[in-house]
Amino acid sequence: MFKTNRVSNAIHLKRKNPLLLFLGCALSLHTVSVFASQQEDINVYPPNWWVGMQRPEVELMIAGEDVADDKVSVAKGSVRITKSTALDSNNYLFVTLDTSAAKAQELVLTLTDDDGSKRDIRYSLKMRKDGSAERKGFGPEDAIYLITPDRFANGNLNNDNVDGYKDKADRSFKGGRHGGDIKGIAENLDYIKEMGFTQIWTMPMLENAMEKYSYHGYSTTDYYNIDPRFGSNQEFIAFSQKADEHGIGVIMDMVLNHIGSNHAWMEDMPSSDWINNHGKFVGTTHKRESLHDPHAIESDVKGFSDGWFVPTMPDLNQRNQHLANYLIQNAIWWVETANLSGIRVDTYSYPDKAFLSQWTNRIMDEYPKFNIVGEEWSVNPAITAYWQAGSQRHDNYDSALPSVMDFPLQAAVVEALNNDESWNSGFISVYETLASDFLYGDPNNLVIFPDNHDMSRIYTQLGHDKEKWNMAMTLLLTTRGIPQVFYGTEILMGNEGSDDHGIIRSDFPGGWPSDSAKNAFTGKGLSDDERWAQDRIKALLGLRQSHPELFKGELKHYAPVDGVYTYFRVASESTDSLAESPADSSAKKLMVVLNKEPVDLKLTKYAKMFGANASLRRVSDGEIFKASDTISLPAMSANVFIVQ
Amino acid sequence: MFKTNRVSNAIHLKRKNPLLLFLGCALSLHTVSVFASQQEDINVYPPNWWVGMQRPEVELMIAGEDVADDKVSVAKGSVRITKSTALDSNNYLFVTLDTSAAKAQELVLTLTDDDGSKRDIRYSLKMRKDGSAERKGFGPEDAIYLITPDRFANGNLNNDNVDGYKDKADRSFKGGRHGGDIKGIAENLDYIKEMGFTQIWTMPMLENAMEKYSYHGYSTTDYYNIDPRFGSNQEFIAFSQKADEHGIGVIMDMVLNHIGSNHAWMEDMPSSDWINNHGKFVGTTHKRESLHDPHAIESDVKGFSDGWFVPTMPDLNQRNQHLANYLIQNAIWWVETANLSGIRVDTYSYPDKAFLSQWTNRIMDEYPKFNIVGEEWSVNPAITAYWQAGSQRHDNYDSALPSVMDFPLQAAVVEALNNDESWNSGFISVYETLASDFLYGDPNNLVIFPDNHDMSRIYTQLGHDKEKWNMAMTLLLTTRGIPQVFYGTEILMGNEGSDDHGIIRSDFPGGWPSDSAKNAFTGKGLSDDERWAQDRIKALLGLRQSHPELFKGELKHYAPVDGVYTYFRVASESTDSLAESPADSSAKKLMVVLNKEPVDLKLTKYAKMFGANASLRRVSDGEIFKASDTISLPAMSANVFIVQ
Repeated sequence: MFKTNRVSNAIHLKRKNPLLLFLGCALSLHTVSVFASQQEDINVYPPNWWVGMQRPEVELMIAGEDVADDKVSVAKGSVRITKSTALDSNNYLFVTLDTSAAKAQELVLTLTDDDGSKRDIRYSLKMRKDGSAERKGFGPEDAIYLITPDRFANGNLNNDNVDGYKDKADRSFKGGRHGGDIKGIAENLDYIKEMGFTQIWTMPMLENAMEKYSYHGYSTTDYYNIDPRFGSNQEFIAFSQKADEHGIGVIMDMVLNHIGSNHAWMEDMPSSDWINNHGKFVGTTHKRESLHDPHAIESDVKGFSDGWFVPTMPDLNQRNQHLANYLIQNAIWWVETANLSGIRVDTYSYPDKAFLSQWTNRIMDEYPKFNIVGEEWSVNPAITAYWQAGSQRHDNYDSALPSVMDFPLQAAVVEALNNDESWNSGFISVYETLASDFLYGDPNNLVIFPDNHDMSRIYTQLGHDKEKWNMAMTLLLTTRGIPQVFYGTEILMGNEGSDDHGIIRSDFPGGWPSDSAKNAFTGKGLSDDERWAQDRIKALLGLRQSHPELFKGELKHYAPVDGVYTYFRVASESTDSLAESPADSSAKKLMVVLNKEPVDLKLTKYAKMFGANASLRRVSDGEIFKASDTISLPAMSANVFIVQ
Repeated sequence: MFKTNRVSNAIHLKRKNPLLLFLGCALSLHTVSVFASQQEDINVYPPNWWVGMQRPEVELMIAGEDVADDKVSVAKGSVRITKSTALDSNNYLFVTLDTSAAKAQELVLTLTDDDGSKRDIRYSLKMRKDGSAERKGFGPEDAIYLITPDRFANGNLNNDNVDGYKDKADRSFKGGRHGGDIKGIAENLDYIKEMGFTQIWTMPMLENAMEKYSYHGYSTTDYYNIDPRFGSNQEFIAFSQKADEHGIGVIMDMVLNHIGSNHAWMEDMPSSDWINNHGKFVGTTHKRESLHDPHAIESDVKGFSDGWFVPTMPDLNQRNQHLANYLIQNAIWWVETANLSGIRVDTYSYPDKAFLSQWTNRIMDEYPKFNIVGEEWSVNPAITAYWQAGSQRHDNYDSALPSVMDFPLQAAVVEALNNDESWNSGFISVYETLASDFLYGDPNNLVIFPDNHDMSRIYTQLGHDKEKWNMAMTLLLTTRGIPQVFYGTEILMGNEGSDDHGIIRSDFPGGWPSDSAKNAFTGKGLSDDERWAQDRIKALLGLRQSHPELFKGELKHYAPVDGVYTYFRVASESTDSLAESPADSSAKKLMVVLNKEPVDLKLTKYAKMFGANASLRRVSDGEIFKASDTISLPAMSANVFIVQ
């Protein structure tokens, strides 16, 4: 290490953390140190690790002034240092520890300068919690509640504004921070549980130290710390624990594709290839097809993967194996630390493809029963299916991703309900989309949804039509897959007149102490329609919990005829893969009928599914029908029957 | 064989051939006898066979009064009879010959009754033509001309009406027979060749002895004979020979799914399971998805496969192995007899799925370089691709079908040109469809087409817009695949005001001696637009023939931007699968630019494809552009450039 370097590095380090300069406090350093005791001007990522992992190596990113040329050592008999690598910046050193022979312990890593001066870093190797590796991820038995943390409930008014963070609370601005936080969610777990949800997916809550529009959380400026306006890492861990006590799992929203432009890396990149397009903004093409297209040109493929979303979201180059390790270990660290039951991956296909294979495999190797759902916003099942583990692929791409978001079904449900019935429109859209399930490795593990935080609310997509909303929700809570409901959908929240994301993600009524007139948690001030909708979701989710065939059973559907779409969920043991099985009184079955026009439905049409002696109990009113009956159904109705 | 049976069989036989009773002449017997000398009251199918086939067994269907209980024998040392099977009818006997040790010869099969009386049947085992097994099927180097034989040219006025056939010529009726025939096509081979077509696919010409609407040919009443209103088997063979001398191959349209209701089988079924749904009409659901759908119910799957198209088209049950053999051998018989260069299979996915596997494999085993294209009318590439040999499939289904009709691309081209440009409409439709080529075993062997005989003509689909027509035709004659053009498309034939099939398949001007005012063969009476269109097709097909990169080269396309869609066809040896290759002056390349709005196109955008020193010659006017030039293109134009 040379003097000249020292000088430039000192400058470099000063430039490294803009918050340190601009805001006068080292937020990242401060919060990381909760988890790792270490020399105060050096950060280590991940801030701790565990013994007993499937893969015993962990690659530490040691960030600190002039660490790049240091020699790193550790006391004999603790762990083995197998590799030490410096890249372009003098302020990062990548050190691989082999923990295979290690016990849980507080390590001391010693950095030795070329002039012999030493710096010690304390590093914790912890014991894993019992059963961590065997944790079961969310699955078809669950129902996921998607929350925009800034917009759900403001449990702590004191963290609405935090010193050093420029984007201040402003409820009057649709793109501003409104003050919702972890405490707000934690305080309303009873409501979420009573509604029947068993998983919570929150939009990202990691630090987003951006000047504005930071409320959504997708501009990460610190991969290891919760944004203080949402709470702290401790609060997040405690929230996860409390949710678990409510029988609710926590799914973390992870962003692998990009960071926020205020991330410290943008001031001091570990290597010059850390960010795609040489660290300068070039927009992505969003043409995901190019990844699969045999006729694609290189610039379209690169344009998709390496392009940025927006200038404030620098696009990470995960082909850099040190960055890849960083992101992989970060995911595992959060699973282990916050006891996650799943991960939702933002903009799934945009990162480097080989990296996604590695990232999913490394995580699933550690947690074989875990679940991860990728957001691949394509309505072409051949493209969404490509990414799911177990799907047949034209190439030898290895994906360990257990689940993808079912955008094709979302679009099909809206088309089905908004379009008139004909041979190629109406319910046939749903039928054809579900028929495409042959493309998926595991259709029942797809996450299905009426809407999400990035599109118009379902009530608005369906023209604020209650009956259509009811048909959509009935379908999505009774067909195959893992249902996800966006907060507020249960009270018919809409975004009439604007598809601005800030409007779509409006504040949940009752989440703010000042909102005294209307409170969806208590029901106060809700309209009859809103209360009806809330009850409807509660009833459907309750039905789901009491009828495992709704999540474990086979889906058997009839091709739609004359605007009637009928399907069964049948306890798996009772049928082979195709048969309209002869009546088996022991097989639990539910029948769902969606119809647009008034219809006199002859149940004999479905006799093979339930047998001539069956009776059908309608869930909504308890009315019993015989297998030989004809049922009169009014227009635009959604009926669920329990076959008994 | 019992007396009682003899009585009932005699009645049975009388019922067998309704034509014999109704019309007073045994048409089928008469025409088959051209190919096989045999006892006059006995028919054998196939009427002859060949030695030297890949598969030495042939299963003869021997049809004649009371043959079912007969013993069949043959002179020692000729062939081996390995199996003899009777089904439900007394008038059919299925006899398997093993020809593996046989020479070409005239066999005598002897049927011996249980009272010892004998009937001899002469049966010809022929030598195959040299090179028959190695015949090359149609391929990407070809351009197919699709003809409706009844509507193209009436070469023989004497066969417009044929005694015994009820459906008489009536040019004034859109659904009637208009008199076109094999002679009409044969006499116009020079025109077809001059246009640049190298293959002819005719709609079926086998006997359709139906009361009405028989002109289209899809209601087969005799699998072994050309309908006499089109000509004879000899004429068909001679036509194929003459076409071959013009460098034109003949593709036969085969119907495996159904027969015409006047087929003799409907009077005397070989077995009670010969026709689906017990020989009674039940309409198909047309829900092809059900074949793939993991959630399908049995009745939808059966409803698709076993349902009939219309009451006059009884649906064959190819699960009956004797019927399967009959259809397989029939296809091979025609390939061998008429020297076919390919087969187009009607309603491809509707027959039994296992049978389709067997049918394609048996034919491709005999002719490994042959081509067969299946009609699977779905716009979902995942479904069309399922049937093509070499595609990755979710199941272990074995398909040897080399080609499918590219309905997804047809729909995409129309959408691309009729819809405005946006991020998800316009040229993106074509781009996304071609990107889905990852699903196909061999995208370049797909048959692509602007329209066909079952849909509105492309000129009409594009709103009678010449520029759109030009863009569509330019695209479809320069992108990947085997182009097929429906007769009349080259002179802008449309079907404004009616999508009736009889209007879509209107008479080609000049094909009838009485049509003296307008003749598309000579150009007489064509409008300027029609002549321009004809020249345009001729030019594009000529370009194709002189630039093999248009059929052998890789397709490399750029994601459409601002209503401009650009692609290259690049001689394969010059690129790897993805690269925008550095300029290689020896690699032949064509560039195609389709644009909607007027554009100043900077060629430098494509510099990686042709290098900075290339020049581009525009095909339409010979103008030369430098790689650094900006080209002004008017709205709605289709430009082809030769990179040199």
